[in-house]
Amino acid sequence: MRIMIINGPNLDILGKREQQIYGNESLSDIEKQLRAKYPKEEFEFFQSNHEGAIIDALHEALDGKFDGVIINPGAFTHYSYAIRDAIAALKVPVIELHLSNIYSREEFRHKSVTAPVCRGIIAGFGSLGYELAVESLLRQG
Amino acid sequence: MRIMIINGPNLDILGKREQQIYGNESLSDIEKQLRAKYPKEEFEFFQSNHEGAIIDALHEALDGKFDGVIINPGAFTHYSYAIRDAIAALKVPVIELHLSNIYSREEFRHKSVTAPVCRGIIAGFGSLGYELAVESLLRQG
Amino acid sequence: MRIMIINGPNLDILGKREQQIYGNESLSDIEKQLRAKYPKEEFEFFQSNHEGAIIDALHEALDGKFDGVIINPGAFTHYSYAIRDAIAALKVPVIELHLSNIYSREEFRHKSVTAPVCRGIIAGFGSLGYELAVESLLRQG
Amino acid sequence: MRIMIINGPNLDILGKREQQIYGNESLSDIEKQLRAKYPKEEFEFFQSNHEGAIIDALHEALDGKFDGVIINPGAFTHYSYAIRDAIAALKVPVIELHLSNIYSREEFRHKSVTAPVCRGIIAGFGSLGYELAVESLLRQG
Amino acid sequence: MRIMIINGPNLDILGKREQQIYGNESLSDIEKQLRAKYPKEEFEFFQSNHEGAIIDALHEALDGKFDGVIINPGAFTHYSYAIRDAIAALKVPVIELHLSNIYSREEFRHKSVTAPVCRGIIAGFGSLGYELAVESLLRQG
Amino acid sequence: MRIMIINGPNLDILGKREQQIYGNESLSDIEKQLRAKYPKEEFEFFQSNHEGAIIDALHEALDGKFDGVIINPGAFTHYSYAIRDAIAALKVPVIELHLSNIYSREEFRHKSVTAPVCRGIIAGFGSLGYELAVESLLRQG
Amino acid sequence: MRIMIINGPNLDILGKREQQIYGNESLSDIEKQLRAKYPKEEFEFFQSNHEGAIIDALHEALDGKFDGVIINPGAFTHYSYAIRDAIAALKVPVIELHLSNIYSREEFRHKSVTAPVCRGIIAGFGSLGYELAVESLLRQG
Amino acid sequence: MRIMIINGPNLDILGKREQQIYGNESLSDIEKQLRAKYPKEEFEFFQSNHEGAIIDALHEALDGKFDGVIINPGAFTHYSYAIRDAIAALKVPVIELHLSNIYSREEFRHKSVTAPVCRGIIAGFGSLGYELAVESLLRQG
Amino acid sequence: MRIMIINGPNLDILGKREQQIYGNESLSDIEKQLRAKYPKEEFEFFQSNHEGAIIDALHEALDGKFDGVIINPGAFTHYSYAIRDAIAALKVPVIELHLSNIYSREEFRHKSVTAPVCRGIIAGFGSLGYELAVESLLRQG
Amino acid sequence: MRIMIINGPNLDILGKREQQIYGNESLSDIEKQLRAKYPKEEFEFFQSNHEGAIIDALHEALDGKFDGVIINPGAFTHYSYAIRDAIAALKVPVIELHLSNIYSREEFRHKSVTAPVCRGIIAGFGSLGYELAVESLLRQG
Amino acid sequence: MRIMIINGPNLDILGKREQQIYGNESLSDIEKQLRAKYPKEEFEFFQSNHEGAIIDALHEALDGKFDGVIINPGAFTHYSYAIRDAIAALKVPVIELHLSNIYSREEFRHKSVTAPVCRGIIAGFGSLGYELAVESLLRQG
Amino acid sequence: MRIMIINGPNLDILGKREQQIYGNESLSDIEKQLRAKYPKEEFEFFQSNHEGAIIDALHEALDGKFDGVIINPGAFTHYSYAIRDAIAALKVPVIELHLSNIYSREEFRHKSVTAPVCRGIIAGFGSLGYELAVESLLRQG
Repeated sequence: MRIMIINGPNLDILGKREQQIYGNESLSDIEKQLRAKYPKEEFEFFQSNHEGAIIDALHEALDGKFDGVIINPGAFTHYSYAIRDAIAALKVPVIELHLSNIYSREEFRHKSVTAPVCRGIIAGFGSLGYELAVESLLRQG
Repeated sequence: MRIMIINGPNLDILGKREQQIYGNESLSDIEKQLRAKYPKEEFEFFQSNHEGAIIDALHEALDGKFDGVIINPGAFTHYSYAIRDAIAALKVPVIELHLSNIYSREEFRHKSVTAPVCRGIIAGFGSLGYELAVESLLRQG
Repeated sequence: MRIMIINGPNLDILGKREQQIYGNESLSDIEKQLRAKYPKEEFEFFQSNHEGAIIDALHEALDGKFDGVIINPGAFTHYSYAIRDAIAALKVPVIELHLSNIYSREEFRHKSVTAPVCRGIIAGFGSLGYELAVESLLRQG
Repeated sequence: MRIMIINGPNLDILGKREQQIYGNESLSDIEKQLRAKYPKEEFEFFQSNHEGAIIDALHEALDGKFDGVIINPGAFTHYSYAIRDAIAALKVPVIELHLSNIYSREEFRHKSVTAPVCRGIIAGFGSLGYELAVESLLRQG
Repeated sequence: MRIMIINGPNLDILGKREQQIYGNESLSDIEKQLRAKYPKEEFEFFQSNHEGAIIDALHEALDGKFDGVIINPGAFTHYSYAIRDAIAALKVPVIELHLSNIYSREEFRHKSVTAPVCRGIIAGFGSLGYELAVESLLRQG
Repeated sequence: MRIMIINGPNLDILGKREQQIYGNESLSDIEKQLRAKYPKEEFEFFQSNHEGAIIDALHEALDGKFDGVIINPGAFTHYSYAIRDAIAALKVPVIELHLSNIYSREEFRHKSVTAPVCRGIIAGFGSLGYELAVESLLRQG
Repeated sequence: MRIMIINGPNLDILGKREQQIYGNESLSDIEKQLRAKYPKEEFEFFQSNHEGAIIDALHEALDGKFDGVIINPGAFTHYSYAIRDAIAALKVPVIELHLSNIYSREEFRHKSVTAPVCRGIIAGFGSLGYELAVESLLRQG
Repeated sequence: MRIMIINGPNLDILGKREQQIYGNESLSDIEKQLRAKYPKEEFEFFQSNHEGAIIDALHEALDGKFDGVIINPGAFTHYSYAIRDAIAALKVPVIELHLSNIYSREEFRHKSVTAPVCRGIIAGFGSLGYELAVESLLRQG
Repeated sequence: MRIMIINGPNLDILGKREQQIYGNESLSDIEKQLRAKYPKEEFEFFQSNHEGAIIDALHEALDGKFDGVIINPGAFTHYSYAIRDAIAALKVPVIELHLSNIYSREEFRHKSVTAPVCRGIIAGFGSLGYELAVESLLRQG
Repeated sequence: MRIMIINGPNLDILGKREQQIYGNESLSDIEKQLRAKYPKEEFEFFQSNHEGAIIDALHEALDGKFDGVIINPGAFTHYSYAIRDAIAALKVPVIELHLSNIYSREEFRHKSVTAPVCRGIIAGFGSLGYELAVESLLRQG
Repeated sequence: MRIMIINGPNLDILGKREQQIYGNESLSDIEKQLRAKYPKEEFEFFQSNHEGAIIDALHEALDGKFDGVIINPGAFTHYSYAIRDAIAALKVPVIELHLSNIYSREEFRHKSVTAPVCRGIIAGFGSLGYELAVESLLRQG
Repeated sequence: MRIMIINGPNLDILGKREQQIYGNESLSDIEKQLRAKYPKEEFEFFQSNHEGAIIDALHEALDGKFDGVIINPGAFTHYSYAIRDAIAALKVPVIELHLSNIYSREEFRHKSVTAPVCRGIIAGFGSLGYELAVESLLRQG
């Protein structure tokens, strides 16, 4: 399966950032573990702090290049209607993922503008969430 | 691992109910598949349309009888602060699960009063969600 | 016609309860009058103060046992999304009924979470409302 | 019994208008059926797209000319406090009626500014609603 | 001084209408008293239940025919932005008047959409309010 | 093309009214210019300060008498759900037009209750807006 | 007639303060004019920037010392529920007065917490408002 | 004095539950202390996690069996309009009690739907609150 | 025990004020009864209509002069964040007390800005509430 | 006339994206048609999914390089106050354009944060909207 | 430069009050440091827990006695429209200052009713904020 | 001291942009003055209209390269939760700065999503604000 995994703003500093919330694994640690665990799958990892770059990346999934997308939109979750529109344009399943349980944090994090156009949402499982999202794609195939 | 799986109101009529949203598997189909897939785990399945019965069931997990709880609170998700309090009292991890993507449905379904006291939330994957929830418990140990 | 008539919380004390609002007929008076007035119809009367019991009762109408349901959800009208879901699962017509005019009372009574999934709503006619609801089922056949 | 039946804006084009919602009977069809069904009652039918004309019509019921009023205020339901005041001035019972179930349509239709000053409300039964409203007046005398 | 006095919906039934709130003087009683009290002033009285007719009447004051306008917009106060626009177009002073104290009644009566474009507002003095409004025009000249 | 152009409340006093906002052309100037510019099209102009009269006018377009409607609902834009319903009943395209940019004015003007049932909206271009609206009908044919 | 006239915060600097809104008469000018105009009435003038002092002053009217009270609560209008309670305790009529039209100013000035317990409200007439308020007391006796 | 003491959801696990908030006394400890302290009074203790069972219990106080009711509705406080209606039906005084100060906790706990129909409310005193509630009944007779 | 009892605005006119709500005992009656009932305790009574004076009084409890404070903030309850801050600064327990049940009165009285920083709240028991508050301090010692 | 036409996020995939809403013309089709239709005008087309790039582009119009700007901000319409500020800085007219009627879609699309600082808005005419916008610039000169 | 420095409620107990938020310097420490640091400037320090006294103090700056005002309104920041009006009356610059970062504390502290009429706001720098405010006055002259 | 100064969208056109609000100094003027005034400090100036670029810049301060950050987020202040998260990740103090008093401008500018995670905020002092921010860093060391 060809899976694009998109990570949004401030996920590049994972491991250095508010460790009591986000843990001390880096994003590259997570990527390595995922490749190790799912050696047969083709992953494309993409991270950006730029909303526009994430939209550009999502557009790559428009024409059959990937079988599914996993996206952790970071704080863009809460206001980027532009990313929402980019997700809505896709035909492959898109899974929204959050490391932390966004519902037990500040009020503004309770609202996801992207979730309504995703297939499903997985939140609160730390880096394990990426595995669960991959499982969701593999098992629904 | 000893896992309690609690299903809330109207999940007893799964398969007969709004099939365009909830599919046509029955709850008992889901339970069978889960036992088949995870033969080593000890599952306790519980379903009720009674809020009080669900609270009573959650209390069973207070004293070390289970290693984790998976709960699909059905419509109680949106208003049962009593179930929320019962979850908050537990020390084992509780996973909130929804068959449908509650964020792409009516406004009132976007708010979960139970999610803030759960470890994580999984929504939108149909019956596969139960497997993902089990995985989340197994893999985080 | 086989009609289930469901009455929710505190309707068992009708006649003893805030009589300036609800009058002094008891629920059993109403049932008797209804049977007397419509001797050919098969009524099943059900009252409970338990939300779960009302959901269970509604499920009985899932498989063709009744031709229509009349429900006075009492105060559950204003918050029981679980009852709403149970009504939405039914294929026979469900009529929502209130003894008092809920729109001329406290603000919280103006909102019905169940009305959107019922066929129609009748409110403010006291016990006569039950007759009107029966008529609505008989005449629409 | 002398009954005034008032129909508000756009009800003159009933049958030509959004038929999936309002059906294809015309208002005059409804009036004919009602006269046929209740030959002993004296009906006065009034329709207008003008709020002021509806208020004028309601004022006719101030001085004992009618025993009851049935009003379908159409979209005025949602904002005409002037019609509300005219209803509040009456001493005979006023029944609010809607063809469609206003609670399962757009948000703005969920609020009735006139309902609080009516005796009761009947909604969602199509043209049958007029019969039910007449019954409510006849049976409560 | 040439003064136009405009009365809105349901003021034609003053004296017959909710007398505990509005008293039992008729509008014509008020007019007579006003003429008697201010014999030198030229009054033009206008009442309508039609929003459009009130707008038409206000337009008469556009071209110097009156020195001031007193308006009791009745329930239109709370939603008629069209009357507001008509008032805003005038160059002579417009006084908003209410018989009752709108701030001690229902919530919806607390908001006036017309007051922001009037010179001043007088409310709660019953029929005496018309005199006060006339005084306000005479004394500011 | 047969085009009905409807203008709502206070547009009859255009040119005399708050000229810093609405300019000093009269409505009749605008009509003349439009006929001059589009000599081949059949225009029917209608203006009223009466909501009911506008609804009546819209109903004329129900039966194929016009190919399109251009409406400037004036302040009715912000609350007339009755006009909204009349527009929704039409099958020909309806264009909503405003002389001023309603989004740079008072908060209450930002909300249009009619726009959701129109084909499109044009606002802020002064009298030129009427031409643009005509163009939109001609070019979409 | 014995009339207490209470002026709230910042009215002591009238004439020096935002003159485009409040004019350039001082409070003492207003008092002099009022005494001159109504030489037979007994006025007691009171001004304070202290909410508590205004409450104390209102309490003086509890026991028949005055026949009426005129109060311009200044900015306390918008939040002093303590002054509201003091007014509600009085049996003589209390008139609320504002120099400016509070409805054409900032949003927060649109709400009066004191108006609901006053007999009436007069706003927007500048210093003339005091005369109108006195008239309202004299004429209602 | 015959006093019914009703405890709502999750109070059965008092002492085991979030001890930093609720302390480590069990409900049965509290009951014993109360009986010890007030040996002359007749107490009936009732606890349930079922809303319906609490309503049923409240109905027992309808017919003179108790002189007063003390209720700690737990999380039902915040949404159970059905319990509110059951309380409103009673003629004996009902005291609402909370162990914790609900106003210094989460936003949703600040609203009590039951308090408006109780005689009084006591919150924040831990198990001592039950004594205070008993005192309130004994001393008011 | 040394207890300061602070009463806020309009409590000085207790007994003369809205007696249907507040009863006809004066504040001094209440104080006498309290001293009589608890002869061993040292009470300091303080009442003021001045917010600042209440803050000053609360500051007296900063340095160990009192063992507890009982405060009835009157209408300041609903907006005085300054009093809230003064309470929050104290280390001794502060009990908030209201004579009436503030939750069954006007909407604005439902919100207490001071309650979140008090130990507990007692409302609705009339003058008996002061005794209950004293009991709460004595028994928790 | 020199006209800059700016298109925001996801407009680069026009024709491939939610075709039931946006049609199947590509952005480049639209550009070609526009050049063909208005051969004398100088167009500069710019599209970006990057908010910052759109701001940079708008800045190019600061110094007289263009006579007007047409902008379809895509989803940025609903939250990009930064683009709003860039538009507000311009002295040439800016026209806001939307392909679809944003008022008949999801609630969040009803609010435009950029419209208040544009000259006018055109929405709902599909690709024809670009022509109308060009006309608005040409005809107002 | 002649600078008035006004401190509002509870700032007199600085150093004794919630030290984790406000530090342990007293207000008099701050004043001393300021005089030491800026020996050439003329400071007038004023503190009060009385809103009215603060208004009186602000009025002293009406007539040229000071060149600037620095105000820390304490909790009055959040509701004292009376202080706002007093500030708005001044012609010299007024700087609003807060010791803590009010935006990272309770929701109610996020709103300042006084800030809109001040020249600028400085918050979050502890006692250093007073120096910054003085600098802002000195450097802007 | 090593200080990073970050300026957000539209600050590159300072001096050319809405000069009545922002003055006519350019950003480069401000930078020059700052270097001149604080010759011993090491400044790094960064400006971008790209949210992502600002996040990238903030990340540079993660690893001890700077002793403090001053940020004027421009319009991103009001919605960029992504920038907020980047600031929250930093351990050095971050000062939020605005040229204008954002509280005396449009409603949307009153809310800062970044302020809660900054040390302090300085607004309304024009270019002088940068100096004050530098002072705040230097003096707190």
